[in-house]
Amino acid sequence: MSIKISIIGATGYTGAELVRLLSGHPEAELVALTTQSYVDMPFWEVYPHLYKYNQLIAEKMDLARLLDQSDVLFVALPHGHAMPVALEAARRGKVVIDLGADFRLNDYRVYEEWYKVEHGARELLGTAVYGLPEVNRAAVGKASLVANPGCYPTSAILALAPLLKNKLVNLRSIIIDSKSGVSGAGRGLSLGSHFSEVNQNFKAYNVAIHRHTPEIEQELGKIAGEAVTVSFTPHLLPVTRGILSTVYAELASPLRQEEIQEIFLDYYQDEYFVRVLPQGMLPQIKWVAGTNHCDLGVTVDTRTGRVVVISAIDNLVKGASGQAVQNMNIVCGLPEYTALAGPALYP
Amino acid sequence: MSIKISIIGATGYTGAELVRLLSGHPEAELVALTTQSYVDMPFWEVYPHLYKYNQLIAEKMDLARLLDQSDVLFVALPHGHAMPVALEAARRGKVVIDLGADFRLNDYRVYEEWYKVEHGARELLGTAVYGLPEVNRAAVGKASLVANPGCYPTSAILALAPLLKNKLVNLRSIIIDSKSGVSGAGRGLSLGSHFSEVNQNFKAYNVAIHRHTPEIEQELGKIAGEAVTVSFTPHLLPVTRGILSTVYAELASPLRQEEIQEIFLDYYQDEYFVRVLPQGMLPQIKWVAGTNHCDLGVTVDTRTGRVVVISAIDNLVKGASGQAVQNMNIVCGLPEYTALAGPALYP
Amino acid sequence: MSIKISIIGATGYTGAELVRLLSGHPEAELVALTTQSYVDMPFWEVYPHLYKYNQLIAEKMDLARLLDQSDVLFVALPHGHAMPVALEAARRGKVVIDLGADFRLNDYRVYEEWYKVEHGARELLGTAVYGLPEVNRAAVGKASLVANPGCYPTSAILALAPLLKNKLVNLRSIIIDSKSGVSGAGRGLSLGSHFSEVNQNFKAYNVAIHRHTPEIEQELGKIAGEAVTVSFTPHLLPVTRGILSTVYAELASPLRQEEIQEIFLDYYQDEYFVRVLPQGMLPQIKWVAGTNHCDLGVTVDTRTGRVVVISAIDNLVKGASGQAVQNMNIVCGLPEYTALAGPALYP
Amino acid sequence: MSIKISIIGATGYTGAELVRLLSGHPEAELVALTTQSYVDMPFWEVYPHLYKYNQLIAEKMDLARLLDQSDVLFVALPHGHAMPVALEAARRGKVVIDLGADFRLNDYRVYEEWYKVEHGARELLGTAVYGLPEVNRAAVGKASLVANPGCYPTSAILALAPLLKNKLVNLRSIIIDSKSGVSGAGRGLSLGSHFSEVNQNFKAYNVAIHRHTPEIEQELGKIAGEAVTVSFTPHLLPVTRGILSTVYAELASPLRQEEIQEIFLDYYQDEYFVRVLPQGMLPQIKWVAGTNHCDLGVTVDTRTGRVVVISAIDNLVKGASGQAVQNMNIVCGLPEYTALAGPALYP
Repeated sequence: MSIKISIIGATGYTGAELVRLLSGHPEAELVALTTQSYVDMPFWEVYPHLYKYNQLIAEKMDLARLLDQSDVLFVALPHGHAMPVALEAARRGKVVIDLGADFRLNDYRVYEEWYKVEHGARELLGTAVYGLPEVNRAAVGKASLVANPGCYPTSAILALAPLLKNKLVNLRSIIIDSKSGVSGAGRGLSLGSHFSEVNQNFKAYNVAIHRHTPEIEQELGKIAGEAVTVSFTPHLLPVTRGILSTVYAELASPLRQEEIQEIFLDYYQDEYFVRVLPQGMLPQIKWVAGTNHCDLGVTVDTRTGRVVVISAIDNLVKGASGQAVQNMNIVCGLPEYTALAGPALYP
Repeated sequence: MSIKISIIGATGYTGAELVRLLSGHPEAELVALTTQSYVDMPFWEVYPHLYKYNQLIAEKMDLARLLDQSDVLFVALPHGHAMPVALEAARRGKVVIDLGADFRLNDYRVYEEWYKVEHGARELLGTAVYGLPEVNRAAVGKASLVANPGCYPTSAILALAPLLKNKLVNLRSIIIDSKSGVSGAGRGLSLGSHFSEVNQNFKAYNVAIHRHTPEIEQELGKIAGEAVTVSFTPHLLPVTRGILSTVYAELASPLRQEEIQEIFLDYYQDEYFVRVLPQGMLPQIKWVAGTNHCDLGVTVDTRTGRVVVISAIDNLVKGASGQAVQNMNIVCGLPEYTALAGPALYP
Repeated sequence: MSIKISIIGATGYTGAELVRLLSGHPEAELVALTTQSYVDMPFWEVYPHLYKYNQLIAEKMDLARLLDQSDVLFVALPHGHAMPVALEAARRGKVVIDLGADFRLNDYRVYEEWYKVEHGARELLGTAVYGLPEVNRAAVGKASLVANPGCYPTSAILALAPLLKNKLVNLRSIIIDSKSGVSGAGRGLSLGSHFSEVNQNFKAYNVAIHRHTPEIEQELGKIAGEAVTVSFTPHLLPVTRGILSTVYAELASPLRQEEIQEIFLDYYQDEYFVRVLPQGMLPQIKWVAGTNHCDLGVTVDTRTGRVVVISAIDNLVKGASGQAVQNMNIVCGLPEYTALAGPALYP
Repeated sequence: MSIKISIIGATGYTGAELVRLLSGHPEAELVALTTQSYVDMPFWEVYPHLYKYNQLIAEKMDLARLLDQSDVLFVALPHGHAMPVALEAARRGKVVIDLGADFRLNDYRVYEEWYKVEHGARELLGTAVYGLPEVNRAAVGKASLVANPGCYPTSAILALAPLLKNKLVNLRSIIIDSKSGVSGAGRGLSLGSHFSEVNQNFKAYNVAIHRHTPEIEQELGKIAGEAVTVSFTPHLLPVTRGILSTVYAELASPLRQEEIQEIFLDYYQDEYFVRVLPQGMLPQIKWVAGTNHCDLGVTVDTRTGRVVVISAIDNLVKGASGQAVQNMNIVCGLPEYTALAGPALYP
C-alpha cells in the first residue's frame, strides 16, 4: 500500500514534524507540501535538518490539484482555514486530518464564541470525529474528517479519562495547571517567542480564557456523561518541546493509592502510547520528548481528599503531528504505531 | 552604624547570595564566612564572580569566636543545624536569622513529623518570629531569632494573604501549584540537579508530601484565624532562579475583577517589595529575578467561581537571602530596602 | 550635579539597559526616552521589570526638544541613524554617546564598504572618539562625540591590547573566535532570535564578513602601530547575555606563562573593570553577566608557540550600555564606576 | 542474523545511548548490560525514558559470562578500564568496540604521557583500528578491536581530512576551536555539570592540555603523511547534546570558494553520514542532534588567506555511540546506516 499524502501548511512546526514522521513511514508517500511564505523553495532549505531526507519543493496551495493527487490531506493551518479544504475534500471523498481547531467543537456556537470567527462548514460538524484514539478509537476508524485534538486537551483528557469514566471525582472540582514548551506557539514571530524574552523565564498566560477550555470540557463531558467545568491555566516553559499538566480533582469517596493506580493501569492496559508509570515515579517531559507517548503518574493525597494526576507529552508529537499520523494509521487500517514507535532521545 | 555580621554556611548558594547582597550594604560589615568544604580558601576562589569584591577567607565554624565578633549571625545550613547556634546566640544576646526550617514551625511535633529529626531547641520556638515582613513586620522588629520563611511559602502566602485576611475564599479549596528554578536545591551535587537531566526538562516532585506544606498551612491559618489545609505541588523549572506559584481558590461569594484587584492593591499599598501588577498584566519570573520583589497578578474566573493568583519571586532573594537581609534591616531599624532596591536584570 | 539625559531609541535592549543603569546613577536625571514602536506608552509597560522604577512615557523623537532639555544624548539606534543626531548636537554643543557603528570607523570609505550605506556626517569623524576607556581614556575625557565600541570589538581588543602594545605577537597570526548571547541581536523579531530555533542550538554566522572586523583591525592597528589583519568568527550562544572570545596569536618569541601573566597584570593594574584572573582560572560569562567587567585569562601554549587569551564580558553592559555610562562618567568628570560597580548575580 | 551484544558500562550516557540505538536495530540482540552503581535494577528504572522498551536488569560485570554470551562487546568505561576486557576478548576471538581512549593512540608512550596511567595492553595496539569509517573504513571492516574515536576528534578530523588529504593547508597553522554540550562530561556528578553552574554560562577549559589533542594530531598526521601540530581549545556549551568545531588553517596557496566546496563534496561524495552543506549554509548543532550525521560548512576568507571549516555532530551519537554502532555494522557486514538513519528532531 502507498498512501499519497499532501500537507497543507507544511512550513510551520507541526507541518515540518509531519514531514519528519512521514519520512520514516513505510506506507506513506508525500506528494505535496504547501506553504505561503516559502513558495518554490526546496523544503530542506526551509528546514535544513531534513537535508538529504526530503526533495520536495514547497508550493502554493492548489486545492484541486492536491485533491487529485492525494488520498490523505493533513491540514496544518491556523484556525478558520481548514473549513474550505474540508468541504471540498468531503465532496471528493478524500480523508482530511485537521491539526487545527475548526472541527474539534461539536457546537458551532461554542466555536464562534471562543474563536471569534464564523464557522464556515457547519454541515461537517456532525461527521467530524475527535481524533483522540485512546478514548475514541472506533469512531476514528470510520472517519473521513478527523479533528486532531489540541495539545493541552490531549494532555488533560488522558489524565482525567480513567477518573471520569469510573465516576471517581467531583466534576466541579477539576483544576488543570498546564505547562507547555514554546514550540506550541509555532514558528510565527512574536515577542512572546523571542529568545531573550522566554529564556530563563516562566509565566502563565490566557488565565481563565484559553480556547482549549471548551474543547477539554466537551470531551470530558462525553466521558463523564454529564457536563464538566474546569479551571485551565496554561503556562510557558523555557523549553522547546513538551507539555506537563498537573491535574487536581476531589475524590468523590476515599480511594487508596493502590486502587487508583490499578484503575489507571486497567484503563490503559491495551494502549501502546500511554504509559502509566509505576507508583512512585512521576512523568518528566524529557522522557517523552520526540515520542508519541503520554506518560501518566497518579497520586492520592489523603490529607486533602484529592487526586493529583500528572501527564507528560510532546506537544508537537502526541499533542499534534504524531497523533495525526496515529489517526491516519487507524483510518488506513495500519498498525497504530507505524512510524511512531521508539523511545525519547535522552538526555 | 556598622553591623558586624557572620554567615554560617556561607559557601552554599544562599550564603553566597548573602555575601553578594551585603557587599553593597552601607551599614554591614562581614566579619566571618564559615564553610565545611572550603576551609581556608579565599571566598572569591569558591565564587569567582566575587573576585575583587570580597577578601575574606572561608573558615571552619568556631561558634564562640563568631559570637564574640558578631552582632548578627545568618545561618544558611541544612535543617537541624541551626538549633545549637540559636541556643548559644540566645544566651549571648545575639541576633540570629535562620534561613533554614528549624524555627519556622511553632509546634515541634509538626516539625518532627515532617522533618524526621528531633527538635533540639524547643524552648526557643516561643520566641522565634516568622520573618515574612509583609505579614508580620511588627514582630520581626522586636525579634532576636528570626525564622526566615521558605521560598515556596513566601510565594504562596503573599499570594493568599489578602484573600484570607478578608475571608473571601473557601478555606478547603486552596491549591498551590508552584514551579521553582533549580538553585532552590542548592549547590550540593545530585542527579536531580545534573545539567543534562534538568535541562529542557520539567517535572513535579514530592507531590502531596513536600515539607513546606505545614509551614504554608500554619501561616495561612494565622491570617485566616482558623485552620487551613492546602494542596501544594512543587515542580522543577529548567531555570536557575525564580519561583512562580499559581494559586487557586473558590470564592466564598462572587466578586468582580475590579473589586479583587482593589483588595490586593489595598492590602499591599505600603509595601516596597510587593508589586500588585495592573489588571491584565501577569507576573513573569524574569521581571523579579535578582530582586527582592514579589509580583502578584490576580484573575477572577467567573465561569468557575474561582480566583487565580499568580506570584513570582526570586527563590534566592525574596525566597531566601534577600528576605533575610530585609529582616535584618527591620531588626536593626534600618530602611527595609537598604541594599535591596533595584530592578531586575532584563532581558 | 544633575546630568540631564535623553535616550534616543530607548525601547531596544541597549536602551532599556541604559534606563536600568541610569536609574541607579546618583547624578543622572532621565528626561526623555524615545521610541518608534511604543509611542505614548509608559516605559514600564514596555519593560515591566521596571514597574515602580521609571515613570517616563516613551515618546516620538523630537530632536530639537531633546537638545533643549538634555546635556547628554545616548543614541541606541541602528547604524545610519545617529548621524543627523550627532550633527545637530554638535551644532548645539551637546554630548552624544552613540552606541551604534556610525562613528567607530575613522575612514568613511571603510564604513561605506562594510555597512553599505553612505556616511552622512563625515565632518564629524575627526572629532569622534572611540570610547574604549581602558585604551583611550584621555581622549574620551575631552570628547563631545563618543563612538561606543561594538560588543565583539570590546571583548577582542581588551584581550589583545597588552600583547600588541608590547609587540609580543605576529600581527598576521591573530584569530578571534567569539561566542555571543542572543540579546546582542536586539529585540527586533527574526527567525534567528526565535526561541525554538536558538534554544539548545549553536552556530557560527557571518564567517569572514562580520562588520565588527574592520573596527577590531582599526583599533588593534592603532595599538600596534601598524596594520593588523584578523580572522574573526562570531557564533550564537543559547544564552541571553555574555560574550566569550577565544583569541589566538603566535608569539613573536617564546614567553613563559608567568611572564605573560605579569604583562597582563601590569597593563591593567589600574583598571577597575578589567579583572586579569589568577593563573589557572579561566573566564566564564556568568561571572560577568550583568556587570561592566571584562575578565581575562591568558595561557601560553609552548607546544605550538601560541598564546590563547580568553575574555568575557556582558554584551549589553561592558559591550554596550555599561560602557556607554562609563564613557559618560569620564566625559562628566565623575568616578568611572559610578552606577556600574557590583558583582554578577550568581548563580 | 542476530548479533548478540553486551554493553559494559551501560548506565552512563554513552551506554544508555547504545541501548537506545540498538533497541531499533533489526539484527542486534542485547544480552547483557553491566553497571557498577545500579546492580540488579531494571535498566528502565535507571533510564525511565526506556520504560516499555527494554526489559534487561543491570548487572555487575562478569567478563567470562559476557564473553560466553556475546558476539560483540561495547565498552563504555572510563579510560584505563577497557584493557583487561580487550585482552580477554582477543583470546576468545570476540569483537570489542571501545568507546574510551585506551586504544586510540598507537604509541603507548603518548597514551601514558597524556592519560597518566600505564598502558596494560600494549600488545593489542598493533591490531586496534581507529574507528572513523569515513577515513578508515577498510581497516574497520577487518577489525576485531575498534577504538571508537573521541567526540572532539571526530568533529575535527572530518573537518580537516579533505584539506590535508589534498595538501591544501599549512600544517603548522591549524587551530581547532570546539564547543561541546554538557552530556560529553557524562552522568557522573561534578560541580562542572551542576545545572546552576552551567546554565546560561559558557567557558573554555583545559586550554592547550586537553587529551584529545594527541589523538587529533595522530590521525591528521596519517592523512597528511607528515606530522601535524594543532591548537585545540574545548569549550562547554549550555546545551545537552552537540559539538560544533570551528577550524582555521592557512591555505598553502589561494583557492576560490567554489574550488574548495568542490573538494569537500568530492571527498565525501559516497558518505551517508557526512553532509557537506551547500555554499552559504553553515552547520548548526540542532540540525544533527540525535543523529549520526556530521554536517560541514567551508568558507574561504580571501582577506586573510585562511579557510574556515565548521563541523557539527551530536557528541553522543556520531561522537560516541552512533559511530560505535556504525563501526559494528561495518565489522558485521551490515549496511552502515542500519539503525542510524533519520533526521534530527527539530525544533
